[in-house]
Amino acid sequence: MGGEALRVLLEHPGFQVAWATSRERGDAARVHPNLLGAGVELVHPDAVGPCDFVLLAVPTAESLSQARRFIDAGARVVDLGAAFRLRDRATWERAYGCSHSEWELAHAAQYGIPELRADAIAQARLVANPGCFPSAVILGLAPLLAGGGFAKGPLVVDGISGTAGVGAELWRGAHHPEIGNNLVPYNAVGHRHIFEMEQELSLVAGRAVTVHFTPVYAPITRGILAICHLFPEEECDREALLERYRAFYAEAPFVKVHDLPPESEGPYSCRAYPWVSAVAGTNFCTIGLDVDRERGRVVVFSVLDSVGKGGAQVGIENLNLMAGLERSAGLARRGLHP
Amino acid sequence: MGGEALRVLLEHPGFQVAWATSRERGDAARVHPNLLGAGVELVHPDAVGPCDFVLLAVPTAESLSQARRFIDAGARVVDLGAAFRLRDRATWERAYGCSHSEWELAHAAQYGIPELRADAIAQARLVANPGCFPSAVILGLAPLLAGGGFAKGPLVVDGISGTAGVGAELWRGAHHPEIGNNLVPYNAVGHRHIFEMEQELSLVAGRAVTVHFTPVYAPITRGILAICHLFPEEECDREALLERYRAFYAEAPFVKVHDLPPESEGPYSCRAYPWVSAVAGTNFCTIGLDVDRERGRVVVFSVLDSVGKGGAQVGIENLNLMAGLERSAGLARRGLHP
Amino acid sequence: MGGEALRVLLEHPGFQVAWATSRERGDAARVHPNLLGAGVELVHPDAVGPCDFVLLAVPTAESLSQARRFIDAGARVVDLGAAFRLRDRATWERAYGCSHSEWELAHAAQYGIPELRADAIAQARLVANPGCFPSAVILGLAPLLAGGGFAKGPLVVDGISGTAGVGAELWRGAHHPEIGNNLVPYNAVGHRHIFEMEQELSLVAGRAVTVHFTPVYAPITRGILAICHLFPEEECDREALLERYRAFYAEAPFVKVHDLPPESEGPYSCRAYPWVSAVAGTNFCTIGLDVDRERGRVVVFSVLDSVGKGGAQVGIENLNLMAGLERSAGLARRGLHP
Amino acid sequence: MGGEALRVLLEHPGFQVAWATSRERGDAARVHPNLLGAGVELVHPDAVGPCDFVLLAVPTAESLSQARRFIDAGARVVDLGAAFRLRDRATWERAYGCSHSEWELAHAAQYGIPELRADAIAQARLVANPGCFPSAVILGLAPLLAGGGFAKGPLVVDGISGTAGVGAELWRGAHHPEIGNNLVPYNAVGHRHIFEMEQELSLVAGRAVTVHFTPVYAPITRGILAICHLFPEEECDREALLERYRAFYAEAPFVKVHDLPPESEGPYSCRAYPWVSAVAGTNFCTIGLDVDRERGRVVVFSVLDSVGKGGAQVGIENLNLMAGLERSAGLARRGLHP
Repeated sequence: MGGEALRVLLEHPGFQVAWATSRERGDAARVHPNLLGAGVELVHPDAVGPCDFVLLAVPTAESLSQARRFIDAGARVVDLGAAFRLRDRATWERAYGCSHSEWELAHAAQYGIPELRADAIAQARLVANPGCFPSAVILGLAPLLAGGGFAKGPLVVDGISGTAGVGAELWRGAHHPEIGNNLVPYNAVGHRHIFEMEQELSLVAGRAVTVHFTPVYAPITRGILAICHLFPEEECDREALLERYRAFYAEAPFVKVHDLPPESEGPYSCRAYPWVSAVAGTNFCTIGLDVDRERGRVVVFSVLDSVGKGGAQVGIENLNLMAGLERSAGLARRGLHP
Repeated sequence: MGGEALRVLLEHPGFQVAWATSRERGDAARVHPNLLGAGVELVHPDAVGPCDFVLLAVPTAESLSQARRFIDAGARVVDLGAAFRLRDRATWERAYGCSHSEWELAHAAQYGIPELRADAIAQARLVANPGCFPSAVILGLAPLLAGGGFAKGPLVVDGISGTAGVGAELWRGAHHPEIGNNLVPYNAVGHRHIFEMEQELSLVAGRAVTVHFTPVYAPITRGILAICHLFPEEECDREALLERYRAFYAEAPFVKVHDLPPESEGPYSCRAYPWVSAVAGTNFCTIGLDVDRERGRVVVFSVLDSVGKGGAQVGIENLNLMAGLERSAGLARRGLHP
Repeated sequence: MGGEALRVLLEHPGFQVAWATSRERGDAARVHPNLLGAGVELVHPDAVGPCDFVLLAVPTAESLSQARRFIDAGARVVDLGAAFRLRDRATWERAYGCSHSEWELAHAAQYGIPELRADAIAQARLVANPGCFPSAVILGLAPLLAGGGFAKGPLVVDGISGTAGVGAELWRGAHHPEIGNNLVPYNAVGHRHIFEMEQELSLVAGRAVTVHFTPVYAPITRGILAICHLFPEEECDREALLERYRAFYAEAPFVKVHDLPPESEGPYSCRAYPWVSAVAGTNFCTIGLDVDRERGRVVVFSVLDSVGKGGAQVGIENLNLMAGLERSAGLARRGLHP
Repeated sequence: MGGEALRVLLEHPGFQVAWATSRERGDAARVHPNLLGAGVELVHPDAVGPCDFVLLAVPTAESLSQARRFIDAGARVVDLGAAFRLRDRATWERAYGCSHSEWELAHAAQYGIPELRADAIAQARLVANPGCFPSAVILGLAPLLAGGGFAKGPLVVDGISGTAGVGAELWRGAHHPEIGNNLVPYNAVGHRHIFEMEQELSLVAGRAVTVHFTPVYAPITRGILAICHLFPEEECDREALLERYRAFYAEAPFVKVHDLPPESEGPYSCRAYPWVSAVAGTNFCTIGLDVDRERGRVVVFSVLDSVGKGGAQVGIENLNLMAGLERSAGLARRGLHP
């Protein structure tokens, strides 16, 4: 997360990187080979000078103390971790298994989904950047749930994620020999991100929303595909729903509605659905959908990069809002194809 | 499919390969490099001699005529394609977009899931080998639906598949530059395999079962992970459900219940769920599950190889049954790790 | 190639995209899903208006006619294909198996490696953009061969490439089921790119240089690793050679010398060598090396992206030079990690 | 290595697994998910009973003491590690950085390449199983060097390996986020396996052979591709060299000569070269080659699975020889395609 933020900020037209900390010292290229020759020195967290904005990409316990420290010093903070994301203290303490030492800060923090609350983020002293799966799921479902519908059946979401979400920590499930030809379900019930999804979607829907969420790691590095299933009360059709998405996101620079017409290539029809490869490395989220009129189901596909729009880059989008810069400053570059 | 059958049959203790046909001629190694030096010549379908059993791995239209031809010549046939899988003619003709010229054969064919109907398969003249996704989903859900339960909520299944399922036909969605870092949803509603799932699960459950199924290609070659969501009428727990699976499959040599205890490694808990890499290349299906007691959901993970247990190898298991051989003859080898 | 150029040019501060052609028509997102919502229409090559610069990414025969057409119309052209890369007509006609209908143009074209001939490129009417492997090999070896040394032993290069180099054309060797777990050597002797390498390295070295080159596709999408082996006349050491590279590329904005110190992690030592993942998607080339003093060998690792620095992006670097813009305009963004 | 041996031995017609040890205890499926339901318990090394043959897959220091212990107890041992592979003590101690406490055993051990010394292996009390890269390179080059030729130019080998060679130990270079889109050169000079290659190829050639070897990890799990370059004293042609390989390996059940004719598919010619995917998971080694008559080079491609023919499976081939069983017992199954 920190490395991705650094990569983008080094070319950002509106910010200058004052310092970057890490568990390691010295040339950032030792940790991030993409920064070879960029001249970035990693320093000790205690050795940093004053600055206007701080992006925190540290473990939860450290987020709590560092957020306090930098805010007290007058900076405004975007925390890329989970320390300040939940509105309910008991839920947070249960989800993260420890007591929350800075609840006052958490209480005042803004949950940082710019498509839903750009104005509040712009004013915030502390922004709680959303989790990667929640970003995909909330952006993917908000236009449908906002209408108050889809309250009848359960809301089922399978989240398939690239391994960049694992981070730098080595783990057997992300060891290439294990996952190279594999799909690795994990935390199949009770994943911590569910609380964020339910909190935000309940706000959007105006009712208590329950999300049935299951995450799986797949052998790609960057990106998430959220497959969301909803059961409409009455018949609906694809084109009308797509129009709802286009309207909802008409002003959102980074959410694209994948409304290409269905076309078959032999037995396959895939052009009508978004590809996660197309948003890898970027701050874009693409959303597509289809409707099974016969069996009464809507399936929504939402794709984004877990360390891009689902992580460090949306953190920078939030910083842009906070600093009064153009919202897309430094973030407009499209992803690769192929 | 044909190549996989050939690979296994070449080492099978109870069968001898009389001939193998293909669109290409000559050394099979030109098409299947794994058969280099095996001395297999591919011949024209018209140039084949008599034999006791025929495995068909050809397009649907050819299946219809070849099945008729070989059965008339006295052979017994396992069709690896979709020509004879459905019990309802109108459903078949709608799903495959053409009229069925051999419905009498289809009517007499046995749907070849050995765990559910080994005796009937043993007697059959024509076996309709199941599709890959249906194999995973039917094996994964039969023990729960057999009890008559889970009739309340919808049955949602996401099927994530390796690209071997695409076969030899080149397709943009399986072009490595496109899928190497990607997840490719396709035919998101109305996939043909749904009819098989619903047909067989309805028989198992004793009621009409609707399956909400969405397939996605992932950048692995072999194997399928079916993620199946069910909503229980009343509270249930993981251990009791696992026991139901163990009992249901007590006599099944190729279905393994993944009942390892949950163990966390840092923030991840994945040991309790099956890995598709562990059954790639084999005739095994492994099934695991978890229960979200708080939100009232059961998630079942069923993994198998789409051209192994979900294709050519279960075809050979069916041949073993038909020929009165040991059911696991030639099929017992475990998959690779890693 | 065309898609990559488009992606970068859409955000370029100094150029405006006048039009883009393709074999397909309509929204570019149908072909390039990363351009969804970018509003790019693909038009017929005959339907284009006037413009100052043309980037050609078309088959060789078309390059010949289109280059002539656009130059006659007053535009300056960068050809991303192979039509104008060789100085010797007989060699070109042998390599590409046809006669060259625009040799006058070819004769006047500049071979577009900006590190070796920025001034000539800036003046050129027609630039022949280098091939991907030649870019990696020429940049990787120029600093050593420029000194006049390494004339004793053979020059051996293995080039391992991601599949983006295959392009959009479907091919069995890039079919995911075939290459997903594979390494695919091809054209193991006599690859067309050898002529470019030999032509340019001979100019650099001031003697006839022979390159023994073998290409292999590996299951990554973007990027090339060239492993180059040289046999020094006398003992040399890593640090001195690295210094030679740093001096040679002191003014080159996009070539980085990977001079991190060797560090072992258990039995592995890899930090001293460049990673292709670090330059994927970018216009950077990173070069590292090591010396086997005992056996008398130097190995040079040169990495770049075959459609970035080895293709469309260096084409834009050349356009920047031709247009008198800052050389790194639109190209400075670092690659991803991970 | 141990897991792979176990997998194959569980279905071996001539051996019974008496016990299996590991750092972990309990059901082997916790470590090797492919063994779920196989009923294998992992025991402590001190808790093992008597047996006829022991396969050691342990760290070097343990190999030294365990080989001594089991041989003293009357067993015959195949060591899959590096403890007993080198004939020269000083070389071994330099390569492995410690003194060798059981040199008498090492002195009496047979280097276990069955194609070169089947009779000696059959009689041996202790077999030193070859390293993975050495297996590929020695098998790949023996037929050419045996003739006494190719002494003029250097012998250059690039070895591209899947990550299974890393083993179970977590390492940053095999962390999926790092290697998923990457190629990772490591130990680019002085890799320990060079000593084995030089030792055995010198014996074959009847002269001191120097090997210039560079290893690279690629994002596949199983298998190695060794690309070997030789410089012939005089003109030679592909067909004649292939005939030399066919003659050399006429009696070898597991080495296949890839002698398919060159065929082009568009600009690509790859059918004439072996694919590592075709031997993954097996005890087969496939060798192909090409000749650059113009520039005077022979390139040999040798592929095998580093934990199959390059590891545990050739260990079982050696056990078959030692036990007087059919050499291919338990090992004949072909690899997967795709």
